[in-house]
Amino acid sequence: MPGTDTYLSLRAFVDELVRCGLRDACTSPGSRSTPLALTFAWAPKVRATSHLDERCASFFGLGLAKATGVPPALVCTSGTAAANYAPAVHEAYEARVPLLVLTADRPPELRELGAGQTINQTGLYGRAAKWFFEVDDFPASPARVRWLRQLACRAFWTAVDGRPGPVHLNFAFREPLVPDGESGVPAEDVVAGRPDGRPWVARTRVPRLLADEQGLELRAAVRGAARAVLVAGRSERDPRLGASLAAFAERAGIPLLADPLSGARRGPAAIAHYDALLRSPEFAASVVPDLVLRVGDLPTSKPLRGWLAGLSAPQIVFDPETAWQDPDGSVETIVPANVRATIDALADSLPKRRREQSWLEQWHNADRVASGAIISTLGPELNEPRVSVELGSVLPDEAVMVVASSMPVRDVETFFPARPASSVRVLSNRGANGIDGTVSTAFGVAAAGHGPTVLLIGDVALAHDVGGLIAAGRLGLKLVIVLIDNDGGGIFNFLPAAGQGEPFVEHIATPHGLDFAHAADLYGLGWERVAEVPQFRDALARALASDQTTIICVRTSREENVDLHRRVWESVRAAT
Amino acid sequence: MPGTDTYLSLRAFVDELVRCGLRDACTSPGSRSTPLALTFAWAPKVRATSHLDERCASFFGLGLAKATGVPPALVCTSGTAAANYAPAVHEAYEARVPLLVLTADRPPELRELGAGQTINQTGLYGRAAKWFFEVDDFPASPARVRWLRQLACRAFWTAVDGRPGPVHLNFAFREPLVPDGESGVPAEDVVAGRPDGRPWVARTRVPRLLADEQGLELRAAVRGAARAVLVAGRSERDPRLGASLAAFAERAGIPLLADPLSGARRGPAAIAHYDALLRSPEFAASVVPDLVLRVGDLPTSKPLRGWLAGLSAPQIVFDPETAWQDPDGSVETIVPANVRATIDALADSLPKRRREQSWLEQWHNADRVASGAIISTLGPELNEPRVSVELGSVLPDEAVMVVASSMPVRDVETFFPARPASSVRVLSNRGANGIDGTVSTAFGVAAAGHGPTVLLIGDVALAHDVGGLIAAGRLGLKLVIVLIDNDGGGIFNFLPAAGQGEPFVEHIATPHGLDFAHAADLYGLGWERVAEVPQFRDALARALASDQTTIICVRTSREENVDLHRRVWESVRAAT
Repeated sequence: MPGTDTYLSLRAFVDELVRCGLRDACTSPGSRSTPLALTFAWAPKVRATSHLDERCASFFGLGLAKATGVPPALVCTSGTAAANYAPAVHEAYEARVPLLVLTADRPPELRELGAGQTINQTGLYGRAAKWFFEVDDFPASPARVRWLRQLACRAFWTAVDGRPGPVHLNFAFREPLVPDGESGVPAEDVVAGRPDGRPWVARTRVPRLLADEQGLELRAAVRGAARAVLVAGRSERDPRLGASLAAFAERAGIPLLADPLSGARRGPAAIAHYDALLRSPEFAASVVPDLVLRVGDLPTSKPLRGWLAGLSAPQIVFDPETAWQDPDGSVETIVPANVRATIDALADSLPKRRREQSWLEQWHNADRVASGAIISTLGPELNEPRVSVELGSVLPDEAVMVVASSMPVRDVETFFPARPASSVRVLSNRGANGIDGTVSTAFGVAAAGHGPTVLLIGDVALAHDVGGLIAAGRLGLKLVIVLIDNDGGGIFNFLPAAGQGEPFVEHIATPHGLDFAHAADLYGLGWERVAEVPQFRDALARALASDQTTIICVRTSREENVDLHRRVWESVRAAT
Repeated sequence: MPGTDTYLSLRAFVDELVRCGLRDACTSPGSRSTPLALTFAWAPKVRATSHLDERCASFFGLGLAKATGVPPALVCTSGTAAANYAPAVHEAYEARVPLLVLTADRPPELRELGAGQTINQTGLYGRAAKWFFEVDDFPASPARVRWLRQLACRAFWTAVDGRPGPVHLNFAFREPLVPDGESGVPAEDVVAGRPDGRPWVARTRVPRLLADEQGLELRAAVRGAARAVLVAGRSERDPRLGASLAAFAERAGIPLLADPLSGARRGPAAIAHYDALLRSPEFAASVVPDLVLRVGDLPTSKPLRGWLAGLSAPQIVFDPETAWQDPDGSVETIVPANVRATIDALADSLPKRRREQSWLEQWHNADRVASGAIISTLGPELNEPRVSVELGSVLPDEAVMVVASSMPVRDVETFFPARPASSVRVLSNRGANGIDGTVSTAFGVAAAGHGPTVLLIGDVALAHDVGGLIAAGRLGLKLVIVLIDNDGGGIFNFLPAAGQGEPFVEHIATPHGLDFAHAADLYGLGWERVAEVPQFRDALARALASDQTTIICVRTSREENVDLHRRVWESVRAAT
């Protein structure tokens, strides 16, 4: 088959993806993937970025998809290259992030026979791929190209539809892998796309809305509750949801226990310090609700999770993506409707005059007291919690923050203040909570271009994805990296395993002694090491204003950090 | 269930693995995996090494297993951590390398419900795991512990048996994840192992030997062939095979076309430059054999593969591991017997007096002429081929060399000279031919301690696994890294895609501009940049003598390298 046929086919395929909304392709080097890589590189409306490491590429794509909601195409060659996508594909599946994974493969007659770079790519990601499809190598007949246009639409819509997730198409290519002759691929399409740039198959977005009587039932439940709480967790799909939740909670007089990942830690109903507060059994017992509304993923906070698990009040979760975020089996009702529409309708149905506010006031007073106790316990030093306090206070509204799993996401949940009105957008890999690929995810978020992007990360996560820093130079992307360097996995010092002596240190805490200033040199980044709060603020301002990626390094001690957290929790408990 | 039960169970499990022969465990940090990590760390006869990045850990384990033939245990926590093993697991499956992949998981009641770090780990590696088994959490009753001893034996023997490969056991653990109380795990075993350190289940290694009449048939075929060739490719399981092949070929007067990965490029029958020679259609046509014996994986050389594909002579492959290395369908007979035993018996059956030598002489003369043409074309400069010539000439016999996929493995195949008697052991990830994990594989090989370990690697592969360099400092391992830095994937410049202009450069050649001297600083390695042959020799001698890992960097040009290779091939063609 002439190589030109492959290119004519793929051009139609990529054209359809673009018509559906695709804007980005993340390629990695290889030979077998040449037709895919070149077709994306040539496509007029695609930004094709190049990544040496497929693991970085896939987490970069994940970050892009988190920030934009639009799946990028991941393009890699055959063999273990494709297996390097596995961690990000699993994270995308769990976090319900759309991705288009397009792997090149050898044709059947070169599989399992010792031809180079060949593994079994059929169903490579198991159930983590929402859809797997094997695309063979075939001449670019009109029927075939028409089918490829349809296939592209189906792949794209499947990735974004319902419960979004990764779609995997495996493309077999035979040589030649380049177009024939000197003249390249003919300008004329074998089958032209639909007029006006419409996709071959349009997809009507049908909102899932409650029927009238279902809405009335929900409204009755909310109005009938004197002590309702709204728990809001990670929710990346709809950046406007946070404002809706805050408005609803304010109007309903309902305390809003919002993880910063929800975008809803804002406004007068937001309770910022529920994690510290609910560690106190006395406080927890004093705020027993009669209704729990849950939106988004379940927040990470263990005290919150334990408190929710022990309640007897009905718990209603809004779960349009079939996430089943309920490890304690405490949910009573799942409402699989569009969350913002449902919440907005609920808010509209409430009387304009606020309800009796003593319930919210009780939470509020406690939150204010907790905030004071926290600030005074943290003192003027620059420590790990203080970094989260600072970021929550000083980052501009338009900033986007990416938070690493492990301690950063917990510190942000515990210490990020509630803002009066707006909220910095906070993103994190909380599908499977891994620390892998964090740097790359953040660069992907930065590539979405929604605002200055700040990454809060620990040293182990940075060491894990140190190769991801190459995106700064190769792709000309800018990130402000706030590095908490306590030479190891500080979260483990909080666990009972910390009592297990030397094997704990070696195999679980894993100190490494790396000086990341050299990583800054390797990847051409700015570097600042700061030890005090004013220095940190200055460095952050400089980094935000700079054109280049900067690492701001804050050195801390794992042991002192555990002690400080315990003193914070104790002070909050004593104060409330 | 008390945490101590978990530890009593796992201690018996690990004890059995050790009795079977396990010596190494590669852990990565995490909480859920605490019982596995601590049990391996405490096990008296296990070397437990710690790795921040599971991808590095798994390639490190792969290197260990390649060098020793003994599967190490890989131990990681739940979630994407386990998915990071995927590339090495696929490589191990394809290369038939035994691995014991032990992943920690949450119990069923915490799966798919938003509990942290949870993905679907059931059958995570698909068909790339030779065996998958789900181990639940259960009290350490005698029946249970006895079963765990049996299970450990089964996992180990399954990994090494027949076609070796990765075995995956997924362990569900409930909290508590540490032993109860202050006193730790009781010294007494619930079920003691067998006396004398024997494993619970011993495995008799039954050699697969040809029946007498089958041996006679093979002998008749070899003796009846006037123009037989022996093609030897990658063969890691049996380090003594190379010497057997060389002895057989010498006695039989058969040209031995041996990839250095076979360990058989040695002795008077070895033909080193078959790749360059067989590029000449005239030469290829002048050496048509009447019998082809094939051992090990099919070598990478495209001219060799093409030549074999075009032959009408019977081709017999020795394939005891069901590798089916035959992408051209040219094999006529598969002999699944133990290779060394079969070859040794074959050699013994031949008359001591050598056969008529003109056939071997014809190859030899051509090889000598090729060698001269190559050396004179390469000139006195330090270029990419010359690095392979040098390494093949100057490395001590006891050295072990790890060669990256892509150009290094091809240059070593093309330019490594044949040694008179012995051979440096050469290892490479040629199951799926990926460039991923190469640094970590080499450190794993170094950890086997078989001799000074040298890694030949290109800049893209080094950038891909740059995090693997951390093993030098954290594990105190020494490697000599010879880095060919041509700022991109030099192999792609040989391909037709190289004519595709700027998108080729950006997405396929992928220059990056990294100065790896900073990587040496980051990971505390020695660094030398050399530009001439004597400098290279001196640097190599210093690095071999040094206590620390050193990178010896050779800068080259991708374009000039293509030109040089073409001139080499042309000069060999003209000379023969």
